[in-house]
Amino acid sequence: MIDLAPIDRAGLAPRWTAAPWLNSAPLELAELRGRVVVLHAFQMLCPGCVMHGLPQAARIHANFDRRDVIVVGLHTVFEHHSAMGPQALEAFVHEYRVPFPVGVDCPGDSTVPTTMAAYEMRGTPTLVLIDRHGRRRAQIFGRPEDLELGAAVQALVAESDRPRPASDCDEQGCLIEAAGPDRVGALRAQPSRPLEPVSTEVIGTG
Amino acid sequence: MIDLAPIDRAGLAPRWTAAPWLNSAPLELAELRGRVVVLHAFQMLCPGCVMHGLPQAARIHANFDRRDVIVVGLHTVFEHHSAMGPQALEAFVHEYRVPFPVGVDCPGDSTVPTTMAAYEMRGTPTLVLIDRHGRRRAQIFGRPEDLELGAAVQALVAESDRPRPASDCDEQGCLIEAAGPDRVGALRAQPSRPLEPVSTEVIGTG
Amino acid sequence: MIDLAPIDRAGLAPRWTAAPWLNSAPLELAELRGRVVVLHAFQMLCPGCVMHGLPQAARIHANFDRRDVIVVGLHTVFEHHSAMGPQALEAFVHEYRVPFPVGVDCPGDSTVPTTMAAYEMRGTPTLVLIDRHGRRRAQIFGRPEDLELGAAVQALVAESDRPRPASDCDEQGCLIEAAGPDRVGALRAQPSRPLEPVSTEVIGTG
Amino acid sequence: MIDLAPIDRAGLAPRWTAAPWLNSAPLELAELRGRVVVLHAFQMLCPGCVMHGLPQAARIHANFDRRDVIVVGLHTVFEHHSAMGPQALEAFVHEYRVPFPVGVDCPGDSTVPTTMAAYEMRGTPTLVLIDRHGRRRAQIFGRPEDLELGAAVQALVAESDRPRPASDCDEQGCLIEAAGPDRVGALRAQPSRPLEPVSTEVIGTG
Repeated sequence: MIDLAPIDRAGLAPRWTAAPWLNSAPLELAELRGRVVVLHAFQMLCPGCVMHGLPQAARIHANFDRRDVIVVGLHTVFEHHSAMGPQALEAFVHEYRVPFPVGVDCPGDSTVPTTMAAYEMRGTPTLVLIDRHGRRRAQIFGRPEDLELGAAVQALVAESDRPRPASDCDEQGCLIEAAGPDRVGALRAQPSRPLEPVSTEVIGTG
Repeated sequence: MIDLAPIDRAGLAPRWTAAPWLNSAPLELAELRGRVVVLHAFQMLCPGCVMHGLPQAARIHANFDRRDVIVVGLHTVFEHHSAMGPQALEAFVHEYRVPFPVGVDCPGDSTVPTTMAAYEMRGTPTLVLIDRHGRRRAQIFGRPEDLELGAAVQALVAESDRPRPASDCDEQGCLIEAAGPDRVGALRAQPSRPLEPVSTEVIGTG
Repeated sequence: MIDLAPIDRAGLAPRWTAAPWLNSAPLELAELRGRVVVLHAFQMLCPGCVMHGLPQAARIHANFDRRDVIVVGLHTVFEHHSAMGPQALEAFVHEYRVPFPVGVDCPGDSTVPTTMAAYEMRGTPTLVLIDRHGRRRAQIFGRPEDLELGAAVQALVAESDRPRPASDCDEQGCLIEAAGPDRVGALRAQPSRPLEPVSTEVIGTG
Repeated sequence: MIDLAPIDRAGLAPRWTAAPWLNSAPLELAELRGRVVVLHAFQMLCPGCVMHGLPQAARIHANFDRRDVIVVGLHTVFEHHSAMGPQALEAFVHEYRVPFPVGVDCPGDSTVPTTMAAYEMRGTPTLVLIDRHGRRRAQIFGRPEDLELGAAVQALVAESDRPRPASDCDEQGCLIEAAGPDRVGALRAQPSRPLEPVSTEVIGTG
């Protein structure tokens, strides 16, 4: 089983810094407060990510209610940078029908991008489980089994001490909870650019 | 996702009637009160059971703490009776290294055995999820995904309203909680026959 | 790749002794002269046979023209004899939809049956490749890859030195070549008992 | 089974036009005369190629003697051109450990590259089987089974009418047959650039 860090020992998950975003308007970790966040760090040319990590993340996306769980992809390129730019990623996300929001981790001081460095990830694929309060409860490098991962995510979903959701309205617009789970990635209206629809297609659950 | 019946609508799971038992002394549903019970009904010559159901049940057995979850196999033969007698089952359980307790559903009035009839199962494999209070919360015919099954079992594990465990002692002997999770199948001392150890080997999690 | 024994070093495959037969009238190796014979030795309670060997043998049966290649199953029980009698095997063959002829290897002096002993097999599953002249060209214990197995069988099919087929007529009846490849297992008319049709269903090629 | 075109009806496979080459000096179809050529057309962002086609081609590369069979990859990009340039392909070939020579199909008049157009391929993955005389005997779009593919390649290997190998020497240099099967991709010495070694690593044969 995946060991979840006890609540009183878990620190807040670092803020992520990512741009641009695919399948979604820009997402901030803080605005997802109230939901369990499954952060999947991958590279589009990493075989373990393509064969295992992304299909598994898509199964989480497909199986949990999006009011409880949101899956966020993070493209953490630390090698072959020129082959994995945003345009290449966009083609990849389209061809592989990645169904959840994906942000591109911002370049850092070294070859390792900033969020990947802040989370001290060892490589890709890495899966981070963040509870409804924004605390990092598990970080897994490699290939967890579906059964234990389903149980770990559900354990976080079921924790009874639920925070108030992040503010529904701010100067940017208002969170439309009633829009339902399929629209989570596009919840916050962006005045300056049109929203891309969030695809609900799923990879590899056959 | 697997829909769990709401607590106030779920009835108690029927008592099972099974003999003999492999990998364990005889088990009664009532004495497992306090734990989530995953009841896996199978036939040893059912391809869907052999290829999918039993390996999945073994993964549940391997991944959850046995103080929380106990997997129980039930051999519900409703066809080819002469080919699937207790001796054949014993060879099967040995060769396939089934790691959890298995009881043989008692013959009934028709070709369908008694427990299978009491649960109104449609065929094999069938998986029944029973909560800590003995209530039947889900019954699944076929092949659920590992991810949703892990989540459903964990949802039952996490329910906060826990019953008092079944009585530790009775005229048969005493429940040795301290014996630890690997011995669950042999918890209740049986004066009349030696206990077979519960194997902790796991099928098909490679 | 599977190494085929050179023609000048390969001995004749031993005669098999098997009864009863399922999916076919009794078959003799000698009467299959002119075809490549793929002999698959298995036990119905051997996990490696059920998960890998039999589905692979069924794929050979489905993919090659039966005028060139005939797949023959041989039930070589060397353990748990009472659980794997002919009646149990019949249920197994039915439930797993084994599509080719299966003979039951005759009991021998030890726990190992006679044909298994004559071939000096190490265990199950074992695959024996026999050329059009009846010579044993390869014997493989375990799990060959489909790609190399397809190539090895085809290599035998393509050998140019073809023998005259076994005699078309004898005191039992006549071989009806025109009956076509789907009837190979029932080619030789048996006056004393009705023929069971050879199923052409295939396991696990999906 | 894969139907091979009869010899007297099969036309010569069109010449391919590709540059640059990875894992090999430039290869011409004509200089491979005498060997069976398995041409695998793929795109690095095509899921069916990555999940199935390339691992299967690598298994052919691993299982057949390179004096008989040479696997050649052809990167036939007809969409997302900017994401699949030669540099991106090089990273892909490195990360996925593609073990055989790969040429980049030259841009054509439309979005479809020249060789892909000359072969009238319908999409990717496409596998072309070319016999020892350079005749196109099969062209398969999609996912053939390993068993039938192994048989089809072996059928071409076994055809007895073998041509004289392509000329050993020309103005560029000399073919070093003695260098053995692992060096096939680098057979023709190139005076102007150092040869990259041909990796013999294999994808996905586990």
